[in-house]
Amino acid sequence: MSNGYRWPFGPVAIITPFNFPLEIPLLQLMGALYMGNKPVLKVDSKVSIVMEQMIRLLHECGLPAEDVDFINSDGITMNKLLLEANPKMTLFTGSSRVAEKLAADLQGRIKLEDAGFDWKILGPDVQEVDYISWVCDQDAYACSGQKCSAQSMLFMHKNWSSSGLLEKMKKLSERRKLEDLTIGPVLTVTTATMIEHMNNLLKIPGSKVLFGGEPLGNHSIPEIYGAIKPTAVFVPLVEILKSDNFELVTKEIFGPFQVVTEYSEDQLELVLEACERMNAHLTAAVVSNDKLFLQEVLGRSVNGTTYAGIRARTTGAPQNHWFGPAGDPRGAGIGTPEAIKLVWSCHREIIYDIGPLPKKWALPAAT
Amino acid sequence: MSNGYRWPFGPVAIITPFNFPLEIPLLQLMGALYMGNKPVLKVDSKVSIVMEQMIRLLHECGLPAEDVDFINSDGITMNKLLLEANPKMTLFTGSSRVAEKLAADLQGRIKLEDAGFDWKILGPDVQEVDYISWVCDQDAYACSGQKCSAQSMLFMHKNWSSSGLLEKMKKLSERRKLEDLTIGPVLTVTTATMIEHMNNLLKIPGSKVLFGGEPLGNHSIPEIYGAIKPTAVFVPLVEILKSDNFELVTKEIFGPFQVVTEYSEDQLELVLEACERMNAHLTAAVVSNDKLFLQEVLGRSVNGTTYAGIRARTTGAPQNHWFGPAGDPRGAGIGTPEAIKLVWSCHREIIYDIGPLPKKWALPAAT
Amino acid sequence: MSNGYRWPFGPVAIITPFNFPLEIPLLQLMGALYMGNKPVLKVDSKVSIVMEQMIRLLHECGLPAEDVDFINSDGITMNKLLLEANPKMTLFTGSSRVAEKLAADLQGRIKLEDAGFDWKILGPDVQEVDYISWVCDQDAYACSGQKCSAQSMLFMHKNWSSSGLLEKMKKLSERRKLEDLTIGPVLTVTTATMIEHMNNLLKIPGSKVLFGGEPLGNHSIPEIYGAIKPTAVFVPLVEILKSDNFELVTKEIFGPFQVVTEYSEDQLELVLEACERMNAHLTAAVVSNDKLFLQEVLGRSVNGTTYAGIRARTTGAPQNHWFGPAGDPRGAGIGTPEAIKLVWSCHREIIYDIGPLPKKWALPAAT
Amino acid sequence: MSNGYRWPFGPVAIITPFNFPLEIPLLQLMGALYMGNKPVLKVDSKVSIVMEQMIRLLHECGLPAEDVDFINSDGITMNKLLLEANPKMTLFTGSSRVAEKLAADLQGRIKLEDAGFDWKILGPDVQEVDYISWVCDQDAYACSGQKCSAQSMLFMHKNWSSSGLLEKMKKLSERRKLEDLTIGPVLTVTTATMIEHMNNLLKIPGSKVLFGGEPLGNHSIPEIYGAIKPTAVFVPLVEILKSDNFELVTKEIFGPFQVVTEYSEDQLELVLEACERMNAHLTAAVVSNDKLFLQEVLGRSVNGTTYAGIRARTTGAPQNHWFGPAGDPRGAGIGTPEAIKLVWSCHREIIYDIGPLPKKWALPAAT
Repeated sequence: MSNGYRWPFGPVAIITPFNFPLEIPLLQLMGALYMGNKPVLKVDSKVSIVMEQMIRLLHECGLPAEDVDFINSDGITMNKLLLEANPKMTLFTGSSRVAEKLAADLQGRIKLEDAGFDWKILGPDVQEVDYISWVCDQDAYACSGQKCSAQSMLFMHKNWSSSGLLEKMKKLSERRKLEDLTIGPVLTVTTATMIEHMNNLLKIPGSKVLFGGEPLGNHSIPEIYGAIKPTAVFVPLVEILKSDNFELVTKEIFGPFQVVTEYSEDQLELVLEACERMNAHLTAAVVSNDKLFLQEVLGRSVNGTTYAGIRARTTGAPQNHWFGPAGDPRGAGIGTPEAIKLVWSCHREIIYDIGPLPKKWALPAAT
Repeated sequence: MSNGYRWPFGPVAIITPFNFPLEIPLLQLMGALYMGNKPVLKVDSKVSIVMEQMIRLLHECGLPAEDVDFINSDGITMNKLLLEANPKMTLFTGSSRVAEKLAADLQGRIKLEDAGFDWKILGPDVQEVDYISWVCDQDAYACSGQKCSAQSMLFMHKNWSSSGLLEKMKKLSERRKLEDLTIGPVLTVTTATMIEHMNNLLKIPGSKVLFGGEPLGNHSIPEIYGAIKPTAVFVPLVEILKSDNFELVTKEIFGPFQVVTEYSEDQLELVLEACERMNAHLTAAVVSNDKLFLQEVLGRSVNGTTYAGIRARTTGAPQNHWFGPAGDPRGAGIGTPEAIKLVWSCHREIIYDIGPLPKKWALPAAT
Repeated sequence: MSNGYRWPFGPVAIITPFNFPLEIPLLQLMGALYMGNKPVLKVDSKVSIVMEQMIRLLHECGLPAEDVDFINSDGITMNKLLLEANPKMTLFTGSSRVAEKLAADLQGRIKLEDAGFDWKILGPDVQEVDYISWVCDQDAYACSGQKCSAQSMLFMHKNWSSSGLLEKMKKLSERRKLEDLTIGPVLTVTTATMIEHMNNLLKIPGSKVLFGGEPLGNHSIPEIYGAIKPTAVFVPLVEILKSDNFELVTKEIFGPFQVVTEYSEDQLELVLEACERMNAHLTAAVVSNDKLFLQEVLGRSVNGTTYAGIRARTTGAPQNHWFGPAGDPRGAGIGTPEAIKLVWSCHREIIYDIGPLPKKWALPAAT
Repeated sequence: MSNGYRWPFGPVAIITPFNFPLEIPLLQLMGALYMGNKPVLKVDSKVSIVMEQMIRLLHECGLPAEDVDFINSDGITMNKLLLEANPKMTLFTGSSRVAEKLAADLQGRIKLEDAGFDWKILGPDVQEVDYISWVCDQDAYACSGQKCSAQSMLFMHKNWSSSGLLEKMKKLSERRKLEDLTIGPVLTVTTATMIEHMNNLLKIPGSKVLFGGEPLGNHSIPEIYGAIKPTAVFVPLVEILKSDNFELVTKEIFGPFQVVTEYSEDQLELVLEACERMNAHLTAAVVSNDKLFLQEVLGRSVNGTTYAGIRARTTGAPQNHWFGPAGDPRGAGIGTPEAIKLVWSCHREIIYDIGPLPKKWALPAAT
């Protein structure tokens, strides 16, 4: 009788970023605990007060104090701690640069949720323009674009050109203002860096600013942060695919910034090629109710959490489903029972072989 | 409607060792192919002719030639190829030393099946001594101990002392001879290294050779290989646990070599501590039909493929179940549908959100 | 530790009809055997020679002779045998009339696959008219309509009126001829009964024969069988729903006979009401690639095996999936691992509670 | 793309008995609701006030009033209602006699949890006598034996004869008294009936009263109920198996009454034969930690919820697992997600076949 179990790793580490100070560390922490691990948790120190309070609440509710270690430190200290403590598993959510360093340092005992250059494709069936422009605005600019699932690139079928979609997106973006925090400071990219990136894009033939592209005014946001208007830059599809341009165009800007392009009926192959050449396959959306179109795009792309249908978005996760980059054996997941099991436990197989011995068993003769 | 899929990685690599020239690469290759990947396969060049022939057979049976790339090279060349080709996933079976290097080089895009210092515990209920001595002989010395699942350490309850078990194991080991290949050359450890390891063990107080411990005679095996009689060295349990000795005693010798020790009723804690302190949790066996004893040992150990019951062995895998080290997020699996899915594919979630829009939906007003 | 098992019933019976002399009894028999039961099999005696030969082949291939009992009898004898032998489970495939009698006789120890009045709905999106007319012809008239999954009623959206669909179906039906067995004898309904049924339908206001409706000529088929041309009768939707007509219109004719009707955009509610009021929810098809339409119809209907999409049919089962009427706890399934488990085994839960006793356990004091 | 769903039945009925006025109807009702059914609930009218209050509480908590119909009636009225309303599924918990009538009336659209003649086998390994005698007392006499899972027969290995087990059981039974309700009225069997049954058993050669066997004194329990002391009657194993005696000995008495017998090492076959010949395979217990013994008994018996191990009992269900008689396709389950799905929903398979058509498809030529 052979039984498969999921077994905890034991000592594990969790490192999470600034942008969701409660949701990401809490979901990961609880998943680790549910599977029976002993986690040490480090949240980006800019926001770690949130989880500190949460842990106090958990203690109040009965969590034994020795079940979780909470550390408040900079990254260098944490890196040193990881190398010395040698946890069996580390969950890292954050930038690709740090992720790759940690993966090497920890020799792969790691799961990652890193950057995503998340795309959305609008299919040939134009409908619900008001709704879709609103979802695009939310996907690209809510939280000032500082979600790993934020919409970074929009592929628009030519049928949408005359639908008024871009005008509506422009109008919605212009409603955003500092007063009500519908736009706000960018914590990891400066204004100058974003403007420079835009200017580099604008050197590509055919590129243009669709809207935004200017620093925010009338504010006291320090210069080490970024502060720009919600921005969309159009780049022609054929230019995007050129090897001199591709890396530049698909560079993730962790702020309110997206690239928009357009494709005709016979250019779907180019769109799919672009999606395939991107590296960080976090989320994606295919906005269409055309079943054959959906089938074609879904069957030839790989992004992890992929929304399909006329209501598709890039940023709905993770309140009700799996999350994490696809196509990478280090890719983490979050929220679902399956994700919790795969990230926070390993397989153990116990085979009961209790006999009896076969009735006629005898010691095999020597050869 | 949310659907979870397992999605292939695409370009993957498989690197396998000398000791199972057909079984390991073939199981891994077929698993990779079943899940839709495009593998490049490298088998240890000493034995790669076996899989070369197998692949020719697969081609004959209809495998498209472009589905698998087969490379015959040394490890340095393969390492270079991996760094340049950047496969999405690499499966490595082999030594821990190479495994750790590759894990760092590939920044963790790897699954491992590496060494195991596999233990067997004989419980308090003495029975079927003939059978169990024969299984011990097979587990420790079949294939000259060159299985990753070979029995490396035997913890024997004191009740077995007067059962004649060790004498029977000695007798069985002495039946092994070069003529019928029941003993043979060791490919990765020299005779001198094994004798030296034994001598180091014998410096520990209370240690002694139970049987074997001498080079094989009358043979033409080259000196770069190993050639010793099936060997068992007794080391007292309390000595094993001393920090000066532990690493030495639990060093894996990939040849016909095992350490034997004994424990009394009240020393089970020490046995479990020893198992816990070992690092490579591949396979294990708990030889007992005492349900409370089984429960205690299984509940407090972590090895991946763990046999339990009076017929338990360490080396039954992988013909009918999961395989791979436990407690390591890089741990691979082999053979079962679950293992194939976890090793050779990643999760992708597709959420259909096709509408209709809520009947009263209207563009939210600006704040 | 609690383990759930599927456990065989032991002695079981299988009763199958004439129309698939090999497929139905063989799939059911093998399912019963796989789960460890001891079946007695009765196939309709008109065709039982087929399974008799099959069982001889199975014996030749190694099936132990005592694993299956095969009985060749009429229904009355079989009924008597069931009442005396009292099998733990009986699988009956056949007419609803016999099914209901057996269900009462066996006090519910039965699973059924009985008649289906299978509907197909053509959605608003007209396309692939050649293909869909061909599928309709196959669904309604292949095997002379003697499949439990045969298309009995076609709901056609008004958009199809001018598509030429009905003309194409007529043309295809007229290609069928006795010479090549594309039409043939009906084994359980006489020509007179079918013609009488048609005439009853034609009394409904607005009804008309679309094609067929006449006896086949130039043949020697005995009068106890049926022999008519592939027939379609149009009945207006509002008439179908009248309580005086509904039972008549939805009476299953196990021959090459279907009812066709038409609905306008605002009559979908009536179509869904009609589907809901039918009793035998075997198979169904929703021919459309309109995602919102599919969602609406699938979400509000219950048929067991329901095809959806522009290539949908009613008669594809059971080569690759579950089969059986939905909405009935006696409904059987066929072919899939899940169906085999549910039909041919019951649940058994074994809970291991081996101790130890809590350390401080003492006999509770008397109150 | 083929998706399997569990689909609710729609209108369903639930009929539950007196002995668990809250637990059984509530678990069944919630299961039916979770799967989306519309239940009508009838609880035995002697105790229906309990669920009436519970439903008022559910309404208070937000359950829409139209989600559940609650009926307070006698069985004849309910039977009539079922025949007229024709629910798609009925869950009946209660006596076998009514169960069989309903199963025929409803032509098998029913799931049953009926009587159990539940056995316990004590294996050869004698241990924890205090604990096991206490569990036996609880299993047989708690709630005055009015659980469907109550221990009705105890098979005791000879090794237990000198253990003092029976004496301890006697002593525990004698602690039970009306004052603290550790014994109480029996609602469906009169004192006279139970005494008569005992006297019939005592006519079997070798039978004797172990303890109890007398009416309770000093009480005002009406004569339509039963009132006897906790009773155990010993009957020799070989007598039990005689065809003249078997039906009598295994008749379920729904009160504080059990049969005890003894077996020797070589009589295990007879014990297993007795268990196999019983009809109502509800629960069972195998009290032993001997793995080979457990394997033998579990592998050759069929009861639904079977406890194994030295702490095994017959009456632990259903707080943490599946429940219901095994070996009967009408057998219900309770409490687990699997049970809820199997009892309260049917399978529906939706196959999306949306195309496109094969590029070279053309209408097949006429033959």
